[in-house]
Amino acid sequence: MRYQLFYWPGIQGRGEFVRLALEDAGAAYDDVARKPGGMERMMAMMEGGRDKRPPFAPPFLKAGKLVIAQVAEILYFLGPRLKLAPRAEADRLWLHQLQLTVTDFVKEIHDTHHPLGGEFYYEDAKAEAKRFTENFLQERAPKYLGYFETVLKKSGSPYVLGRKASYMDLSLFQLVEGLRYAFPNAMRRLERDVPRVVAVRDRIAGRDRLKKYLSSPRRLAFNEQGIFRRYPELDM
Amino acid sequence: MRYQLFYWPGIQGRGEFVRLALEDAGAAYDDVARKPGGMERMMAMMEGGRDKRPPFAPPFLKAGKLVIAQVAEILYFLGPRLKLAPRAEADRLWLHQLQLTVTDFVKEIHDTHHPLGGEFYYEDAKAEAKRFTENFLQERAPKYLGYFETVLKKSGSPYVLGRKASYMDLSLFQLVEGLRYAFPNAMRRLERDVPRVVAVRDRIAGRDRLKKYLSSPRRLAFNEQGIFRRYPELDM
Repeated sequence: MRYQLFYWPGIQGRGEFVRLALEDAGAAYDDVARKPGGMERMMAMMEGGRDKRPPFAPPFLKAGKLVIAQVAEILYFLGPRLKLAPRAEADRLWLHQLQLTVTDFVKEIHDTHHPLGGEFYYEDAKAEAKRFTENFLQERAPKYLGYFETVLKKSGSPYVLGRKASYMDLSLFQLVEGLRYAFPNAMRRLERDVPRVVAVRDRIAGRDRLKKYLSSPRRLAFNEQGIFRRYPELDM
Repeated sequence: MRYQLFYWPGIQGRGEFVRLALEDAGAAYDDVARKPGGMERMMAMMEGGRDKRPPFAPPFLKAGKLVIAQVAEILYFLGPRLKLAPRAEADRLWLHQLQLTVTDFVKEIHDTHHPLGGEFYYEDAKAEAKRFTENFLQERAPKYLGYFETVLKKSGSPYVLGRKASYMDLSLFQLVEGLRYAFPNAMRRLERDVPRVVAVRDRIAGRDRLKKYLSSPRRLAFNEQGIFRRYPELDM
């Protein structure tokens, strides 16, 4: 099966959580919107045309005739197919539940620079971004990271499900990488309390296929159009 | 199977999307935290204790030995069991994808009164709530509602999957009810463009078991501690 991933070109964004799974598994896929004519195809699919089930927003994945949107759902679908999740229902639901918590966390990370809505320019809600981010770094980020630390502790480590890595571990890698990019100062402090989360990041970074991907041009650099943005005035 | 629902007592909140499905299906369930000693049980489950897979936040559902969190995942799990979703994978994924879009919408609805984070008092971020809500009512609410309208048009109506109601239709009912409570003026205008969404609300409101539930004391009233809050200064 050759997959087609649809996501905004030029940013890692939410699409990156899916990309990491595809790359780590060595799956065959096209990053459609990064190819000529791809953006037009992506926009056409969102408008639906004759398709009865148009997605609301990127990223979405085409797998044969299926079109699946929402990062957590895409990973839920891909997990067993890419051997990045077990097949047992209880385990799949648990991983999905954790990934949905990642979704919530990512939304709050996005809101650090856009607390009033994505329609505003950063410059037009900068004071609000500062207040949001202060609370985020003091309360929310430690709460989410601490929860994942607890999950790793209870799993027996090193991974979320214990001995075998899953797509959730790839997501933890991406969260740490992104937060380090956006909030280098705050993260130095926050990481002290979540050694298991940081250890997952390190292990994942060392995986063969992923290492190759991360040093390839397919891995876009973080930048100030994505989810994780470096605005030094927001970092503590 | 007797289910146990864990959610904050005193508000409809996110738990209500699950409650509606359980009630509509006539399922046997306990609303644990609304019973004596229930809050203590809920908090203990979140702390995990000996349990290896503690949920991050309410609502969560206990079904036998399984503990499932996140509204959309709970509904994904319950759907076929309560005959509120088909069993075919493609249909289940499509419904889940729509429900995850409801999740995103609900988060933005919550943020109309708490744009800087749930940790702030409403009074301490009132000006920000006004700016957020103005954009929400002008851009975001029409976008989400318009998307669901398109989905209903494409399904052939009257329901999201066509002729048979699903848990997603119950969620559309709850969205319309909640938005009418929070933003009565804005909704009068917004509803004009989404007649199919409003028609789903009306059909669902007329279902036998749901009608009984809605007039029972089990259905809490909307109030200013939940997701949908009536602050007249935010309504347009």
